[in-house]
Formats: sequence, C-alpha cells, structure tokens
Amino acid sequence: MGDLVLTTYDWVPPPPRGFVRDIRVRWALEEAKLPYRVESVSFKERGPEHLAHQPFGQVPWLTDGDISIFESGAILLHLGERSEALMPRDPKGRAEVIEWLFAALNSVEMASLPWSLFKFSGQSEKRFDDFLKLRLDRLEPVVAKREWLAGSFSVSDILMADVLRLVDRFEGLAAHPATRDYLKRATARPAFVKAHADQIAHFAAADST
Amino acid sequence: MGDLVLTTYDWVPPPPRGFVRDIRVRWALEEAKLPYRVESVSFKERGPEHLAHQPFGQVPWLTDGDISIFESGAILLHLGERSEALMPRDPKGRAEVIEWLFAALNSVEMASLPWSLFKFSGQSEKRFDDFLKLRLDRLEPVVAKREWLAGSFSVSDILMADVLRLVDRFEGLAAHPATRDYLKRATARPAFVKAHADQIAHFAAADST
Repeated sequence: MGDLVLTTYDWVPPPPRGFVRDIRVRWALEEAKLPYRVESVSFKERGPEHLAHQPFGQVPWLTDGDISIFESGAILLHLGERSEALMPRDPKGRAEVIEWLFAALNSVEMASLPWSLFKFSGQSEKRFDDFLKLRLDRLEPVVAKREWLAGSFSVSDILMADVLRLVDRFEGLAAHPATRDYLKRATARPAFVKAHADQIAHFAAADST
Repeated sequence: MGDLVLTTYDWVPPPPRGFVRDIRVRWALEEAKLPYRVESVSFKERGPEHLAHQPFGQVPWLTDGDISIFESGAILLHLGERSEALMPRDPKGRAEVIEWLFAALNSVEMASLPWSLFKFSGQSEKRFDDFLKLRLDRLEPVVAKREWLAGSFSVSDILMADVLRLVDRFEGLAAHPATRDYLKRATARPAFVKAHADQIAHFAAADST
C-alpha cells in the first residue's frame, strides 16, 4: 500500500461539474479519512499516457503505490479493501456490499444513464422512461426499509447515491419518495459535502488559468 | 464455503435463450471446474421469495452455503476469490482483473445495452451508435495487442465477451476485427461451449412440460 493519487481532468465545461466521476472516489476517500492528493490530466487532449491508465480516455483513475486502477467501481472496491469504514470484513457483509455496488452500476445506472442522455437533450424516449421506472420501483421498497443498502454505510451507497443524483437532477425521483430520502441522507454526509465542494473548486480553479 | 447453487428462470421465450445472464455464471463455474447445481424460479410470477434473493426481480443469483449473491459481476468476483483459474492472487494482477470486470459492465455494456435495445426493435438511434463506437474504438487496440484483458484468462474476459456477444449478434463488431477475434477466442473455450449448451437445454426442457 502506498500513496493514494486520484487523477481527474484539469478542466470540464460547467454542466458536468459536480457530476464528474472523480466525485465517487473523493467521497470514498473522505469517508475513510485516507490521505490522498489530486492530479490533473488534460481534458482537451487525451494522449497515450492517459490511455495507458484509462484505456477509454475517461477519468478518474487511482494509483496506490505501483498499482494503477481505473473504473470508479473497481477503485471503490479497492478502497473498500483498505478501510472498514467502506466495507465490512466478514464474508456475508462483504458479499452484500459488493452485490449492491454492482447493482448501482449495472442494474440502476444501466437504466438511468440512457434516460439522462435523453433528458440532457430535452427529449423523451418512452422505452428508457419505462426501463428506469422498473428499476426505481424495485429500489423504492428496499431503501424504505433500511437506512443504507448493506448494513451500515458502504461503498455501495456511494455508487448508488451518485447514480441517483443524475436522476434527481432531472426530477426523476418525484414518484419515489423513499429513494429521494435515501439520496438526501447520503448527500448530507460531511464527506460528500466536502468531496463535492472540492470537485467544484478544482474545475473552477482551471477557469482562471 | 458451501455448496454452489445457481438459480435462473424456469423458462424464457426463445429470443433471449443463450443470452440469459446465468450463462456468465455457468461459464465461470465451468472454467473453475467447481461443482454446482442449477435451480429454477418462475419467470412468469416473481414473488417475495424471488425478490428476497434478487431485489430487481432478475436472474441469476448464486448461493454459496449461507451466502446469497445477486448481480452477475458480484457473483463472478466471488467465484474469482474461490478459484485462481478465474482471478490471480497477487494484488496487481487482481486489480487488473477487477478494473476490466467493471469496464465490461460499466464502460462497454452501458453503451452496448441501449444500442441493443434499439436493434431488437429494428430501429436505429444515432446517439447510441456513436456511444458504442466510442467504446469499441478504444477496446480494439487493447484486444489487438493481447490475448486476454488482464494477463491470463479471467472473469473479466467472461463478462466482456458476454457483453460483446449481444453486439455481435446485431453485426455490431463488423468494423472492429480484433474485438471480434477476441470474442471468437473467448467463446471457443470448452467452458463457454458447455455453459451455452446447458442454458439452451435448460430452457428447452421447460417447453415440453
């Protein structure tokens, strides 16, 4: 285990600020109180060095000593292994966190991202409205009955909440009050508040250069 | 660690046969030569017992003794922990497998699933054509240079290949020959061939009852 370095873009246009995926990693690091520093890579020119760390030319990636990891899900799982504040150690609790972490990305975001893409462009596409509703209808009773997805707060909540933020941005949680409350609980955590402010400040700093 | 039981639907309509996600788990189990049995749950009526194991009413789920896991990604990761044939033990190799496992689901399938949904209905939607192309253009040089995504064959290849199968089904890999070759290498493995035949037989058996 070595120094933790989170790499994100040096700049992004205003609309995605606060939503760039480095926020997931910042949030987890703040929850775990792990020391880290943030480095930047060019948004406008994505060269071979960038692709060597993130083959799809996206951000973020994390280096932990000589290990470099891309994909926010993989990074959060890695941090979960480093901190009990992010993932419990017993096999059953661990399995529960991991299944919900994948559910956030592969069941909910798989439905919410296409939906958001249409919302960004002001259009509507019924099939993606329906796909998202199907998932939210199932998530609603789960988060109505429990504070966090898997026992105590974990990396699965960080991913699920961040996925839901983009739905809430377009008023997509209006018919799912328990899910909206769950999102509010998550984003009220001091670690999220700091992570979010840090991301906004990071991209704002680039405006003035 | 206990007996491994994979649960899938008792029946599905013909079009998705061979593509139901239990194939990912069957494939991994065959690769690892782990003994398992398959149980069925009703496709037509998804009751509380089903939702207790898989809150989104989907399949598959796996039980390993008293641990029950849903989400194909989480299940494959769990099996990876049980077998070195699916995931290496050294931290660097392990991190590499895990990042590619998430990449299959959250970078590639996130783009390919909306694309497939449009193809299923015979329509075309340029934004999803572009989204998928972006990902495949990045994946192509990676799989042109290496046999498998992360060192030797691993759970990340099972997920990536299964994600790509649904793209290939609609001729979506025509402009990405290295990716198509990678998919051919993966699906030529005896473990995939057996897993696929087993799934087809499982659903065909239900037709005659």
